[in-house]
Amino acid sequence: MPLSEFDLIREYFSKSSNRDDVILGVGDDCALLLPPAGMELAITTDTLVKGVHFSRGDDPESLGYKSLAVNLSDLAAMGADPAWVTLALTLPNSDSEWLKAFSRGFLSLATKHNVSLIGGDTTRGPLSISVTAHGFVKPGSAIRRSGAKAGDKIYVTGTLGDAGLALLARQGKCSIETGLAAIEKRLDRPQPRLEVGCAVRDIASAAIDISDGLISDLGHICEKSNVGARVFLQQIPISNQINAYLRQDGNWATVIAAGDDYELCITIPQQNELQLEQIKADLDCDLVMIGEIVSGSGVTCVQADGTVLEDTNSGYQHFT
Amino acid sequence: MPLSEFDLIREYFSKSSNRDDVILGVGDDCALLLPPAGMELAITTDTLVKGVHFSRGDDPESLGYKSLAVNLSDLAAMGADPAWVTLALTLPNSDSEWLKAFSRGFLSLATKHNVSLIGGDTTRGPLSISVTAHGFVKPGSAIRRSGAKAGDKIYVTGTLGDAGLALLARQGKCSIETGLAAIEKRLDRPQPRLEVGCAVRDIASAAIDISDGLISDLGHICEKSNVGARVFLQQIPISNQINAYLRQDGNWATVIAAGDDYELCITIPQQNELQLEQIKADLDCDLVMIGEIVSGSGVTCVQADGTVLEDTNSGYQHFT
Repeated sequence: MPLSEFDLIREYFSKSSNRDDVILGVGDDCALLLPPAGMELAITTDTLVKGVHFSRGDDPESLGYKSLAVNLSDLAAMGADPAWVTLALTLPNSDSEWLKAFSRGFLSLATKHNVSLIGGDTTRGPLSISVTAHGFVKPGSAIRRSGAKAGDKIYVTGTLGDAGLALLARQGKCSIETGLAAIEKRLDRPQPRLEVGCAVRDIASAAIDISDGLISDLGHICEKSNVGARVFLQQIPISNQINAYLRQDGNWATVIAAGDDYELCITIPQQNELQLEQIKADLDCDLVMIGEIVSGSGVTCVQADGTVLEDTNSGYQHFT
Repeated sequence: MPLSEFDLIREYFSKSSNRDDVILGVGDDCALLLPPAGMELAITTDTLVKGVHFSRGDDPESLGYKSLAVNLSDLAAMGADPAWVTLALTLPNSDSEWLKAFSRGFLSLATKHNVSLIGGDTTRGPLSISVTAHGFVKPGSAIRRSGAKAGDKIYVTGTLGDAGLALLARQGKCSIETGLAAIEKRLDRPQPRLEVGCAVRDIASAAIDISDGLISDLGHICEKSNVGARVFLQQIPISNQINAYLRQDGNWATVIAAGDDYELCITIPQQNELQLEQIKADLDCDLVMIGEIVSGSGVTCVQADGTVLEDTNSGYQHFT
């Protein structure tokens, strides 16, 4: 039996975790929230569209997870603590099995990070998921894209290129001998680096999450900060799968331009390097130096032999 | 030349009004906001999808206006003062004429109500617009759906049914002799009743905006408040166009169930009637009593002859 719009929300999304600052959640014209006194609110919106960000038949549980993860990743990049999210879900029909799996993926990640789903809208139409996430950050301490200075070192979390490689494999454009499941998990279940973002908040000069590829996203830091960047390809942390792929004539573009990694790219002033070393010891993922901010503009990639990589495809652009 | 995702935002949506509480707007991983101390935050999300909420070829300027208006209407229904919005825009292509018109409609309404566009996401895909709106309300004073009590009087703003009638005319299902443009404006450019919502905030027991039709939306108040409602059809404020339509065997369902009016339905306890009379004198639109809350459940519509209207179509439901 088809479910009404109201039943849809009630049935699958009412089990969101309760936070004390949620005065009124799903079910009225608006949600009512009490922001913590004196904190800044960080807000971000990201949409996933079928045929663009995911394919028909993609696992709905992963999709629920990922639609929240990509938004939490934006909060992580600012060093914000996540709190509340809204979900605008457009569906071709009310498939309860699909919805059950989707909400399971969405709410599992929400619960992990103590995030409350406070409202939403379900409409009929081509499958699309739009999430708006809210977090808190101490006034003045959010990490912006605009603070990088020449001499700062560039760091990234995790390993780069796995999501892009998994997508290539899924599209039949390359074959992965071993470890396919692991890199598919990187594509389907990216981990928002919230712990890292908050840990480096007071010592980083700039940060961004790598959704469109390192070159493109580091390029945004450069543009906003009026600086250039020099990246040493050999220093970029990569998985065994990417290593094997590169040895089989794979393209570096998969590592630096394919996107969907949702790792953080962070710049650290040299005077904060010692503090960073202390922070790194406690983190849940690696934070590896891959280059430095220089005066000028644009991102330069230096290869193992010291020459500059000329053809760095820019990151994913929806309208070019 | 196709525009990149980043250019799209920069080109058309950077002229949003500046508010002092917007610390960082469009252009970073998140926007940064400073909520006013001690206020509650009201948050709502609404999506408009092509083929469901509007048709191909609909005027993009109206669409920009309406996509914001329907969200501000939700803030109005809680009695919240609007402040910030995010826009998730999914477009089949980057048509700059369309975007120019869309942003003009969106930003004109935003400017009128001192609302800042603080962030967004543009993606390629089937045309869909998802807006999340944020407003402020004094702690404990938001008007919920759950506060109506037997004996409260039911009021509505404006006139009902005009949007539904305009849609019927546009679909060729009826012809309007005079005043078509005026009711088309009601469909395309609904006025969020922000002034009314804020004015009655401290004397209303419940409120909702009429997006799915009076029966359906008043029904939500009844359900949340555990009460029933008795509406006198003859007291419902209607336009000359609706009056003419009803005299030509038009259906009352267009008035009470067609939706898209975005007027407010408000319940007022009898002891606050005098205060309401004082407030009404200063309002920018009519506020008319159409019935009363009763014990029991459900919405009953009483006709001119005192009999009960049996067949009240329920409001618009996306999945039934």
